[in-house]
Amino acid sequence: MSRNLLPSKGMRDFMPEEKRLREHVMGIIRDEYAKNGFLEIETPVVEDIERLIDSDGGENTKMIFKILKRGEKLDLDADTLKEDDLIDLGLRFDLTLPLSRFYCNNHNDLPKVFKAMQTGFVFRAERPQRGRFRSFMQCDVDIMGDETNFSEMELIDVVGKTLNRLDVEGFKVKINDRRLLTDAIVKSGFEAEDVTRVCISLDKADKIGIDGVRKDLVKQGFSNEAIENLITVMENIQSGGLDGAEKSGLNPDAVNSLREIMAAVLSINGGRYGIEFDFTLVRGMGYYTGTIFEVAYGDLGYSIAGGGRYDNMIGNFMGKQVPAVGFSIGFERLVEILKERGDGERDEDHLALIFEAETPAEIIRVGDELRATYTSVSAFRREKKFGRQLERLKKSGYKHFAVIEDGSAVVKEI
Amino acid sequence: MSRNLLPSKGMRDFMPEEKRLREHVMGIIRDEYAKNGFLEIETPVVEDIERLIDSDGGENTKMIFKILKRGEKLDLDADTLKEDDLIDLGLRFDLTLPLSRFYCNNHNDLPKVFKAMQTGFVFRAERPQRGRFRSFMQCDVDIMGDETNFSEMELIDVVGKTLNRLDVEGFKVKINDRRLLTDAIVKSGFEAEDVTRVCISLDKADKIGIDGVRKDLVKQGFSNEAIENLITVMENIQSGGLDGAEKSGLNPDAVNSLREIMAAVLSINGGRYGIEFDFTLVRGMGYYTGTIFEVAYGDLGYSIAGGGRYDNMIGNFMGKQVPAVGFSIGFERLVEILKERGDGERDEDHLALIFEAETPAEIIRVGDELRATYTSVSAFRREKKFGRQLERLKKSGYKHFAVIEDGSAVVKEI
Repeated sequence: MSRNLLPSKGMRDFMPEEKRLREHVMGIIRDEYAKNGFLEIETPVVEDIERLIDSDGGENTKMIFKILKRGEKLDLDADTLKEDDLIDLGLRFDLTLPLSRFYCNNHNDLPKVFKAMQTGFVFRAERPQRGRFRSFMQCDVDIMGDETNFSEMELIDVVGKTLNRLDVEGFKVKINDRRLLTDAIVKSGFEAEDVTRVCISLDKADKIGIDGVRKDLVKQGFSNEAIENLITVMENIQSGGLDGAEKSGLNPDAVNSLREIMAAVLSINGGRYGIEFDFTLVRGMGYYTGTIFEVAYGDLGYSIAGGGRYDNMIGNFMGKQVPAVGFSIGFERLVEILKERGDGERDEDHLALIFEAETPAEIIRVGDELRATYTSVSAFRREKKFGRQLERLKKSGYKHFAVIEDGSAVVKEI
Repeated sequence: MSRNLLPSKGMRDFMPEEKRLREHVMGIIRDEYAKNGFLEIETPVVEDIERLIDSDGGENTKMIFKILKRGEKLDLDADTLKEDDLIDLGLRFDLTLPLSRFYCNNHNDLPKVFKAMQTGFVFRAERPQRGRFRSFMQCDVDIMGDETNFSEMELIDVVGKTLNRLDVEGFKVKINDRRLLTDAIVKSGFEAEDVTRVCISLDKADKIGIDGVRKDLVKQGFSNEAIENLITVMENIQSGGLDGAEKSGLNPDAVNSLREIMAAVLSINGGRYGIEFDFTLVRGMGYYTGTIFEVAYGDLGYSIAGGGRYDNMIGNFMGKQVPAVGFSIGFERLVEILKERGDGERDEDHLALIFEAETPAEIIRVGDELRATYTSVSAFRREKKFGRQLERLKKSGYKHFAVIEDGSAVVKEI
């Protein structure tokens, strides 16, 4: 048998300490989502390959783990073998596509406005590098069937409350609308098919500034007039925010919607976190159609949650347009933040019950009595080198141990 | 985009009602395991393919979902293309193999006797049929590093306590030892290499009886003398239980160990469930080396949990023998049993908050006030056909709704 003991490349094992923290964080997220009326669903990690490839998943569709056909369906002798002939399934790269399929398949049995939550691992065959994994956890809330921006407000509210419950401090919500981006780019004189490329430049503005964006667009050979028009819009917005967007004549529905969302969120959250219009927020996925938002953390603007409105995806499946908007917490980054500040250190109510010659029934009876008081009681046979055994237990996080004397537990400090 | 909306063959979506029951059951299992000192770990669903194929997983190794190599590593032009050239990863078919790899990789940082729990989906490309799925949940507890049968007692105790907490009634534990099976078969005069085939016949005894086993063995052409010797052992055990096994001169260590385990379990559980020696209990996996056990439910002897000792698996990975024993709850069967008896019906403290012209901030504020009392509050816009909306909410499990009057919630029955 293979002696390679590491997890597969880009995959991770979780030791008890880390698993405990992950479950604690996940428990709070799921509880807060549920409290706010989001119904939990689950979909399989495996999906039909056509659904994954033929989606609006952008770059993610290039990173699909593909599963070989099985049995008679697999023909390796075909003359001109193509990859497509070999595969029929794949691992999901996000939770939004499976949710959309689920909604379309079950909408007759679901509430008209369906508030869904889903958590689970997704898989992307990225080049493994520090801090990037090929399998990571997502925690999504989505509202399907409501075209009003009350959905955006509810999603931002529930994610904000969740982060507050986890005592995450110093985060703020950045918000934009894809309709503003498209409108500004097209009205500036760019071609409609260049919108995505121009957006990629805009997306870098927080790192390279407005002048950097100008240079980036010039380098790509776009017309100077279009570039300068767009820069003027950016400057209007930089000085006037949404008023600047209005002054530039951009989509008034989008401007008003953003105003409403920002006012409502600030009023709801009692100043616990900020919300800020950011015209250079783009977000990668191809399927967003309206509002887009993310949660920036700390000075670096490190994003720990992101989402937006995707009113066309369900229509692609079902033939009937259904409005939808979602928000996803970046679970892995969140756990890293909590780990760095020391969350997840072992609680002190875990107890090691040390036994020697007692009968199994007695050990288990005394253990059960202790379990009424301690979160967790684990029985260990006393080792010859008892001092070293206690040292190892202390290292594993135990602060107390118990021995049995005259049928009762005597608890001592380690 | 594909209009096929169903989950992939043999895979399942879980609707909110079912997901709620599954999480409830899983929560109790994980809580009881943790209370008893089992440390939770997690391993990825994807493992290197050699590890999966080159294991003692028996039939399961033939049902692996295999993942295509990616990028430059994939060469479809090779002259004599073999399946092995195309794949490098696969989906796990159980949790025992990943646990063993995990233990070997991390044993220096783990307690000397490591009590592990792991839950998660496993994948088997079985021919889909009613009640059989290609992706299903397992819930394992394992103890590594303890060669004494206190481990067997602890595992049976914790699974028994878990089933008691779930109010599962009428289950009993069946127990046997692979050493007894091997000993009886070889001493009767069968060849050592026939042990597996003879075991497959013995396994059918609960359906076809001792005489059926005799016919089955005769049909396979084994010597009459060996068959009659084995039948005598079976008859001794049928009338005398473990005394019969002793009388037949079978492995005294195994006989004594089973006596100790059965006595301890009966003494611990205060008669809440039975434990019974069953010489025809075989269990499929190739890796068991000693005690084997399962939980039979109801008159049919339907098994809802199973496990045993596998002292060699870790040695295969690590080159150093480490004793290990595990017990796995068949989560899917357990959920079916609880569903049939009506568990998981929606609690009545879920509330629908119906709003009309109120501001978003007011709706969310009132919702949060109600969340102090109700497990879950979901806000819905009042529809024109309000009666029909209430009917649909009632169907979804809501028993109460609230409206906002003068800034406060008024709760009414649906």
